[in-house]
Amino acid sequence: MEIRPIFSLIGVVTATLGIAMLLPAIADAIVGHDDWRVFVTSSLVTTLSGAGLWASASGRAQNLNLRQAFLLTTMIWVVLTLFGSLPFYWSNLGMSFTDALFESVSGITTTGATVMTGLDQSPPGILLWRGLLQWFGGLGIVVMAIAVLPMLQVGGMQMFRAEAFETPDKILPRAAQIASGMTTIYCVLTIACAAAYWVSGMGLFDAVVHSMTTVATGGFSTRDGSIESYHSVAIDYVSVTFMILGALPFALYLAAVQNGQWKRLWYDSQVRVFLFLLLSVSLIMALVQVRNDAFHGEEAFRHAIFSVTSVITGTGYATTDYGAWGPFAVTTFFMLTFIGGCTGSTSCGIKVFRFQVLARDLTQHVRQILFPNMVYVKRYNNRPLPDSISSSVQSFVFLYFVSFVVLSIALSLSGLDPVTSISGAATAISNVGPGLGEIIGPSGNFSSLPDVSKWLLSAGMLVGRLEILIVLVLFTPRFWRG
Amino acid sequence: MEIRPIFSLIGVVTATLGIAMLLPAIADAIVGHDDWRVFVTSSLVTTLSGAGLWASASGRAQNLNLRQAFLLTTMIWVVLTLFGSLPFYWSNLGMSFTDALFESVSGITTTGATVMTGLDQSPPGILLWRGLLQWFGGLGIVVMAIAVLPMLQVGGMQMFRAEAFETPDKILPRAAQIASGMTTIYCVLTIACAAAYWVSGMGLFDAVVHSMTTVATGGFSTRDGSIESYHSVAIDYVSVTFMILGALPFALYLAAVQNGQWKRLWYDSQVRVFLFLLLSVSLIMALVQVRNDAFHGEEAFRHAIFSVTSVITGTGYATTDYGAWGPFAVTTFFMLTFIGGCTGSTSCGIKVFRFQVLARDLTQHVRQILFPNMVYVKRYNNRPLPDSISSSVQSFVFLYFVSFVVLSIALSLSGLDPVTSISGAATAISNVGPGLGEIIGPSGNFSSLPDVSKWLLSAGMLVGRLEILIVLVLFTPRFWRG
Repeated sequence: MEIRPIFSLIGVVTATLGIAMLLPAIADAIVGHDDWRVFVTSSLVTTLSGAGLWASASGRAQNLNLRQAFLLTTMIWVVLTLFGSLPFYWSNLGMSFTDALFESVSGITTTGATVMTGLDQSPPGILLWRGLLQWFGGLGIVVMAIAVLPMLQVGGMQMFRAEAFETPDKILPRAAQIASGMTTIYCVLTIACAAAYWVSGMGLFDAVVHSMTTVATGGFSTRDGSIESYHSVAIDYVSVTFMILGALPFALYLAAVQNGQWKRLWYDSQVRVFLFLLLSVSLIMALVQVRNDAFHGEEAFRHAIFSVTSVITGTGYATTDYGAWGPFAVTTFFMLTFIGGCTGSTSCGIKVFRFQVLARDLTQHVRQILFPNMVYVKRYNNRPLPDSISSSVQSFVFLYFVSFVVLSIALSLSGLDPVTSISGAATAISNVGPGLGEIIGPSGNFSSLPDVSKWLLSAGMLVGRLEILIVLVLFTPRFWRG
Repeated sequence: MEIRPIFSLIGVVTATLGIAMLLPAIADAIVGHDDWRVFVTSSLVTTLSGAGLWASASGRAQNLNLRQAFLLTTMIWVVLTLFGSLPFYWSNLGMSFTDALFESVSGITTTGATVMTGLDQSPPGILLWRGLLQWFGGLGIVVMAIAVLPMLQVGGMQMFRAEAFETPDKILPRAAQIASGMTTIYCVLTIACAAAYWVSGMGLFDAVVHSMTTVATGGFSTRDGSIESYHSVAIDYVSVTFMILGALPFALYLAAVQNGQWKRLWYDSQVRVFLFLLLSVSLIMALVQVRNDAFHGEEAFRHAIFSVTSVITGTGYATTDYGAWGPFAVTTFFMLTFIGGCTGSTSCGIKVFRFQVLARDLTQHVRQILFPNMVYVKRYNNRPLPDSISSSVQSFVFLYFVSFVVLSIALSLSGLDPVTSISGAATAISNVGPGLGEIIGPSGNFSSLPDVSKWLLSAGMLVGRLEILIVLVLFTPRFWRG
């Protein structure tokens, strides 16, 4: 396999990350915090490494074949994670390498689980860096989901191959074209979100950082108390709005902006199911709080829709500890971790589209049992849903649960109790953020876990973010042989 | 739909159950316990109801069509459960109707969850009745799995259509033929098991009851302390052996006995994977105990293989509380609940065959991604595995997890804590027996749960035993319309 085009691309992206490290350096320099040196050093190391990689690979990127695309996709996330951890490791926060890496993985995969405490007293540089990591991660997911996954035929994403563009044969030009369109939309959403937070009374710095982690459905905050600490109705609803916008299919935004197809956004069956699910579970959770006498009226609904949106989109912000809403809420939230938003968004989990495919397969199966002689064509969004998509989705979901089971067992071997192991595995693979129980629950923190557990969770977050199959393929002998 | 042949068959089976109630009556009469009147009354009511149903449906059973087969299969389990609960309800144990029904469902579905305490002081009649219920249930499962499910195309069972018999078109004669062959094998196994228990030092009565619940992989015991209370190495291994025999595909026994194909039993891929899984997890669990300094050497291995066999086959006997083996063991046992034994056995859960199909689909998917132009034919036991089987299996597994999620949430709504809700849902749908946690764990009991939870669990056990889809089909409007 020709490895140079891979190195060349990784070099470019790494150098970009390195340049972005200058932003936190500036932030720290403005408030006069010494950490600016850390960011400048990290930036130099990262940018030069990236540039060196690019130069050594002779610069010019050719088109990629399928194998190269698989290898590139996995390697790019691993390399960015490693460089992204440098500022954490070198800063004077006293973080171990394990912690620095965990925070970096959690950032770039937009998971939002954190090992850091005392955020409120932290220098602006490190807070901004956490936001930037999630922001880049979110953009990476969207580009990967729309430009790369359909080519790789992972998880039924080939269904969205011809969705927005008509150059399906070449991976690179297509990815570049999509990346530029997506970046524009992503930036516009982020700026709108920052402005909305700011108008709602959040400080400018906090508004900028939170806008990056909201649109990316990431969940890192500038405060230990997360969004709850602002005690603002307006901020809560801004957060809900932009988490939802981050969890809708970005290809539809592009279609709306470029071709004026705004209606598609409303008539899209994935969007409808997602919004219906979100609203109905929120209403039920509001009732739960009223019944438990915890909150009433608008406040109950707000906490409900905030928590449900935060978990289902895999963001992980908190306005209140839903762990205290009773067993029904806790059980439901655990199940919600697996669902996720729409495919082609910044959100995580199995995603609504795949559940829709599974449901259509089930319906077809029942009909075929009852009427063996009838031909029934599955449809999705008024297009035929071929069996190849179904089998791709089913393989994905099977693999998802196998990974979940393996990670749960591995975590329990590392010494965690069953609730922490099982919910930790779910939250890592689904890139949600908080788990269940006292340790890693919505009001907990991952810092006290053993190092082995943190490494396992880091691996789980990366594998989950790469839709599992992309990593698995690299471990098959056939991948390297043929 | 012509309902008379359904009533006729249900009548015959119900009458048989009624006649079987005379056995506990005899047992109680011998020791002079008053409960013999309860069993005679129950027997009269049940036998006469069955006979009446049979007579009113004009006796002669015609062949069944597909719809009738679906309806019959569900109704027969519901009706038998109701009549089976009569002795519990009328006996002087003071059981509520909910408890009586729960015990009856748990018996006939071979789950083995119990609401009864003080078994050691209970009269022999009621203990024998619990054993008989599981014994009949186990036989029912085997006949259903081999004779009915392949016709209904539920859960990929059509793969086993031509396995043992060559009369695939007519459900009734096939079922009758299979039932008689299976009953013989089942009886031989039960007698062998009873003899083995007896030789190993168990009292005759206990040996008979335990043989019925071992071969049925049911798990009801005559003692509160389950198999542990005999403190016998021999009895432990007898139990392990016959639980395993009960979890192997009964069609292979028939092929071995009728056609001398003993080798097929050894070369069957499902059997091999099942035994490999059983042994490897047992060895790991033995190491866990050695490392925890709980048990050593043979004793550690024995507790390990006993507990693993008990959970994976869905029996639910206990020789020790594996809840105390640490988080790794608890997490692993929770995952094992879902696996189950082989298809066409008395065991429960998703079953090894279906995991094999999912794994083959995944392999095929990965190969097709890497080599899009290669044709790869999936095989199972040296036969091609058609896509229709895969999609049937995948629908089953999807439905399995959906039912699990819905039941978990419903149980948490009924007031149970998350661990009890989630593990209770898993253990009910998989017909295993014990769950996790202090309340329903291996050393716990279901008696303290609220009535609503017991009803939900009862429904879960029945639906799980009926492979979910059979019940679901009855709730589709199309079933009743066409």
